[in-house]
Amino acid sequence: VIPLPVAELVAALAAMPASAPAARIEGDERRLVQGLATLASAQAHELSFLANPKYRQQLATTAAGAVIVSDEVAVGLQDAPFTRIVTPQPYLYYAKAAQWFEARLNPLPAPRIHLLAAIDPEARVEAGADVGAFAVIDAGAVVEAGARIGAGAYVGRDCHVAAGSIVHPQATLHRKVRLGRNCIIHGGAVLGADGFGFAPDGQGGWEKIPQLGGVLIGDDVEIGATTAVDRGALDDTVIEDGAKLDNHIQIGHNVRIGAQTILAGCTAIAGSTVIGRRCTIGGASIIVGHIQIADEVVISAATVVMASITKPGRYTGAYPMDTHANWEKNAAVLRQLPELRRRLRALEQKK
Amino acid sequence: VIPLPVAELVAALAAMPASAPAARIEGDERRLVQGLATLASAQAHELSFLANPKYRQQLATTAAGAVIVSDEVAVGLQDAPFTRIVTPQPYLYYAKAAQWFEARLNPLPAPRIHLLAAIDPEARVEAGADVGAFAVIDAGAVVEAGARIGAGAYVGRDCHVAAGSIVHPQATLHRKVRLGRNCIIHGGAVLGADGFGFAPDGQGGWEKIPQLGGVLIGDDVEIGATTAVDRGALDDTVIEDGAKLDNHIQIGHNVRIGAQTILAGCTAIAGSTVIGRRCTIGGASIIVGHIQIADEVVISAATVVMASITKPGRYTGAYPMDTHANWEKNAAVLRQLPELRRRLRALEQKK
Amino acid sequence: VIPLPVAELVAALAAMPASAPAARIEGDERRLVQGLATLASAQAHELSFLANPKYRQQLATTAAGAVIVSDEVAVGLQDAPFTRIVTPQPYLYYAKAAQWFEARLNPLPAPRIHLLAAIDPEARVEAGADVGAFAVIDAGAVVEAGARIGAGAYVGRDCHVAAGSIVHPQATLHRKVRLGRNCIIHGGAVLGADGFGFAPDGQGGWEKIPQLGGVLIGDDVEIGATTAVDRGALDDTVIEDGAKLDNHIQIGHNVRIGAQTILAGCTAIAGSTVIGRRCTIGGASIIVGHIQIADEVVISAATVVMASITKPGRYTGAYPMDTHANWEKNAAVLRQLPELRRRLRALEQKK
Repeated sequence: VIPLPVAELVAALAAMPASAPAARIEGDERRLVQGLATLASAQAHELSFLANPKYRQQLATTAAGAVIVSDEVAVGLQDAPFTRIVTPQPYLYYAKAAQWFEARLNPLPAPRIHLLAAIDPEARVEAGADVGAFAVIDAGAVVEAGARIGAGAYVGRDCHVAAGSIVHPQATLHRKVRLGRNCIIHGGAVLGADGFGFAPDGQGGWEKIPQLGGVLIGDDVEIGATTAVDRGALDDTVIEDGAKLDNHIQIGHNVRIGAQTILAGCTAIAGSTVIGRRCTIGGASIIVGHIQIADEVVISAATVVMASITKPGRYTGAYPMDTHANWEKNAAVLRQLPELRRRLRALEQKK
Repeated sequence: VIPLPVAELVAALAAMPASAPAARIEGDERRLVQGLATLASAQAHELSFLANPKYRQQLATTAAGAVIVSDEVAVGLQDAPFTRIVTPQPYLYYAKAAQWFEARLNPLPAPRIHLLAAIDPEARVEAGADVGAFAVIDAGAVVEAGARIGAGAYVGRDCHVAAGSIVHPQATLHRKVRLGRNCIIHGGAVLGADGFGFAPDGQGGWEKIPQLGGVLIGDDVEIGATTAVDRGALDDTVIEDGAKLDNHIQIGHNVRIGAQTILAGCTAIAGSTVIGRRCTIGGASIIVGHIQIADEVVISAATVVMASITKPGRYTGAYPMDTHANWEKNAAVLRQLPELRRRLRALEQKK
Repeated sequence: VIPLPVAELVAALAAMPASAPAARIEGDERRLVQGLATLASAQAHELSFLANPKYRQQLATTAAGAVIVSDEVAVGLQDAPFTRIVTPQPYLYYAKAAQWFEARLNPLPAPRIHLLAAIDPEARVEAGADVGAFAVIDAGAVVEAGARIGAGAYVGRDCHVAAGSIVHPQATLHRKVRLGRNCIIHGGAVLGADGFGFAPDGQGGWEKIPQLGGVLIGDDVEIGATTAVDRGALDDTVIEDGAKLDNHIQIGHNVRIGAQTILAGCTAIAGSTVIGRRCTIGGASIIVGHIQIADEVVISAATVVMASITKPGRYTGAYPMDTHANWEKNAAVLRQLPELRRRLRALEQKK
C-alpha cells in the first residue's frame, strides 16, 4: 500500500526479482513516501534522489521527505530534515524505486484480446497475450502469452513477439520481425520495412532489389518512437540483447547493433555496418555503411563516422558553433587550409 | 459566396475575429476572385501576393486578377492591369486571406463520433467533439467539445485535448499528454512516449527508468508530422503557447520550449534543455541536453549547440560544403590546426 | 516450381516483362536452386552473386550452388564447384532474380476489401483493389484496380492511388496526395501534411498559412518508412517518376525532386528547393530552402548545402571525426582562422 514507510520501501526493493543495490537508511525510517519527484519539486511525502554530486546544493532547500544519496554525499547529512537512503549506486537505486512505484501506480490492465482487433486465422495469439483495439496480427505471426500489442499496432506476416514484450500503439512490424523477451517498441516505430536497395538499370533508373531478410531483435531491447529498423536484403538485420535505441533512429539493412549498446536520438546507421557491444552513440551521429565499430566505443553527438573504428575510446567530429558574424569570417578562411599551409611552408623554407 | 469582388473579400477579412492587417484597394475593386495562387501560376480570377520585394519583377508578367502588395511596392503600380490590396504586412494579409478561403473551400465536416471509434467507458468525449474511424480514446482521457481526433489516432490514458485542437489521422498521444486550445498535431507525431532514461546496472547493462511525468502543451501549438515529444522522467516536458514545431523533430524528456518559439524540421533537442521564447531554430540543428538558450536566439540550420547561450543573436556552426576534391584536400589539413599554429608561432618567434 | 534448375531460372528471367540483362551459364546448368543468399551464408541449393570484385576472395569458400558473376570475374572460375551465371551486370541480374523469387516465395494475397475497412461513400475503390483491416479511404479519394492499401493506412480526401501502387500498413496520405503507378509507400510515411508556413503577426507570434496545394508523385516512386512529404502552400510539392526516397526524409512544401533521383535516409530538403534529375543525395544531408540543384549532382553524406549547385559533380561538407582529445585541441584553434591568416600575412609582409 502507498504511502508506505521508507523502511518498507527499502525492504520491498531488496526483495524485487532483480534486486536494487544495497542500501541503508539514515534518519527517520518510518517517514511515509508515496511517489518520486525531483529535489526541486518534491514535497514532504515524496522520495527524491541525488545522482550527480554537482547538484549537491539542492539538498539544502529540498522539501523532499526522503532522498537517495551516495555514501560520499551522505557524510554531513546527519542533521538533514529528510531521511536518507544511502547506497553506492543512487541512480540505479532511483531506477529501481521508479520501477516499483510505476508498477503500483500505473499497473498494466489485465490482458485481453480486444473485440475490434483483426487477428488472421493463420496467426497464433497465445492465451494471456494482450491485443488492443484495431491492432492487426497477420498470417503466420505469433504473439506469446505475456506479450502486449497496443491499439492500432500492426504485426505483419511471420513476425514473432516473445513473452514480456510490449509493442506500443501505432508501432509497425512488417514481415519477418522477431522480437525477443521483454522488449519495448514505442509508437510510430517501423521495424522491417524494406531496406533501401536498388540496382542501376543502366538507363539512369533504378531496379528494386526485394528485401528477403528479416529483423532479429534480442531480449531487453528498447526501440524509440518513429525509429526505423529495416529488413535485411538477404540475411537479417540484427539488434542484440539489451541494446537501447532512442527516437528517430535509422538502422539500415543488415546492420548489426551489439549487445548493451545505446544509441541516442536521430542517429543514422547505414547499411551493413556492424556496431560493437557496450558502445555509446551520441545523438544525431551519422555512421556510414559497410564499416565496423569496435566494442566500447563512444561517439559524441553530431559526429560523422566515415571509417571503421578499431579501438575503444571516445571520438568526436562536430563543427563548433560561433556567433553568425564570427562564423562567416571563419568560414571564409576555412576552405583555404591547403593554401595557408603552402604559404606557411614557403615562409619556413625562406629561413 | 465565391467568387466574390475584391472589395467584399477585404471587408470580410477586416471582420474576421482576429482581423487581417489594415488594407486599402487600388484599381478595380469589383474584380472577382475565387482563390489564391502564386504570381507565376495565378489566373485572372485569382488573388496573389508579393511579400518579398526581391521578386517584384514577377508583377510585370503575372496574370493574377488581384495582388496583395506593400505600400512601398504599390507605388508605381497605378497602371497595373491587376487590382492591388495594399497593406503594410502583405505576408500576414496573405495568411489571413488563405485562412478565409480555406474555411470556405475546405470546410471541416460537421463533428460526429464515428461508429468504429473505440472510446473507453472511462474516457470523456464531450458532445461537439469529432472522433474518426478507428480512433482510440483510452481510459481517463478527455476530448473537449470542438476538438477533433482524426482517423486512426490514439489518445492514451489520462490525456486531455482542449477545444479547437486537431489531432490528425495516425497521430499518437501516449499517457498523460495535455493539449491546450487550438493546437494542431500532424499525422505520425508521437507525443508522450517514454523519455530515454536508463541507469547503468554496473554490469555493462542498462536498467530502465520508468518515465513518470507527462507532456504539457499550451495553446496554439503546432506539431509536425512524425515529430516526437517524450514524456518527462518526473516533471513534465513542456511546450509553451504559440510554439511551432515542424516535422521530424525530437524533443527529449523534460525539455521546455518557450512561447512563440519556432523550430524547423529535423531539429533535435536533448533532455532537460530549456529553450527561450521567440527563438528561431533552423532545420536539422542539434541542441545537447541540460543547457539553456536565452529568449530571441536564432540558430542557423545544421548547427550543433554544445553549451548554453545567454544572449540573443544569431549563432551558426555548419561546416561549409565544397567540391569533393577540394574538400578532401582541405580535410587533410583540417585536423592539423594546432600543428599549423605551432609552426606559425615558431616563425614569429624567430623574428 | 521451386527448386528449379539454373537453366530454367535464366530462361525465366529472360522472359520477364522487363527482362534481366543478358546472361550465359557456365558449369552445371541443371543444378537446382531454391532461393538467394550471400556468398558467406549460401548453401548448396542457393544462388548467390558477386557484384563488387573487391570481395572476390569469398568465391573460394562459398558453399553456394550457383553464383551470378561478371565476365571479368568469370575468367578463371572454370573449375569452380558452383555454377556461374555470367552477365555484364551482375548486380542488376541479382535484382531481377530476387524479384523473381520474391514473387513466387512471398506472393501477394488476392486483393480483397477487408470488412473492417472504412470507405467513405464518396470515395471510389475500384474492383481489384486491395484494402486492409482498419484502413480508411476518405471522401473523394480514388483507389484504382491493382492498388493496395495496407492495414491501418489512411488515404485522405481527394487522394488518388493509381494501379500497381502499394501503400503499406500505417502510412498516411493526407488531403490531395496523388500517387502514380507502381509506387511503394512504406509504413509510417506521412504524405501531404501541412507545409510549415507561418506569417509573423507583428506581436511576436505566428499566424498559420493554410497549405492549399497538394502532393504530386509520379510513377515508380518509392518512399521510405517515416518519411514526410509536405503539401504545397499554393502549388503542389512534386516528386517525379522513378525517384527513390529512403527512411526519415523530410521534403518541405513546394520542393520538386527530379526523376530518378535517389535520396538516402535522414536527408532534409527545405521548402521550395528544386533538385535535378538523376542526383544522388547522401544520407543525413541538409539542403536549405529556395535553391536549385542541377541534374546529376552527387552530395556526400552529412553535407549541408547552403547555395544552389549549377554543375554536375560531387560535393562534400562533413567535418572529419577524430579522437575526442585531438578534436578538442583542434576545435580550440578552429575558430581562429582569420587570426591565423592575419598573422601569416604579417610574417609574409615582413619579408
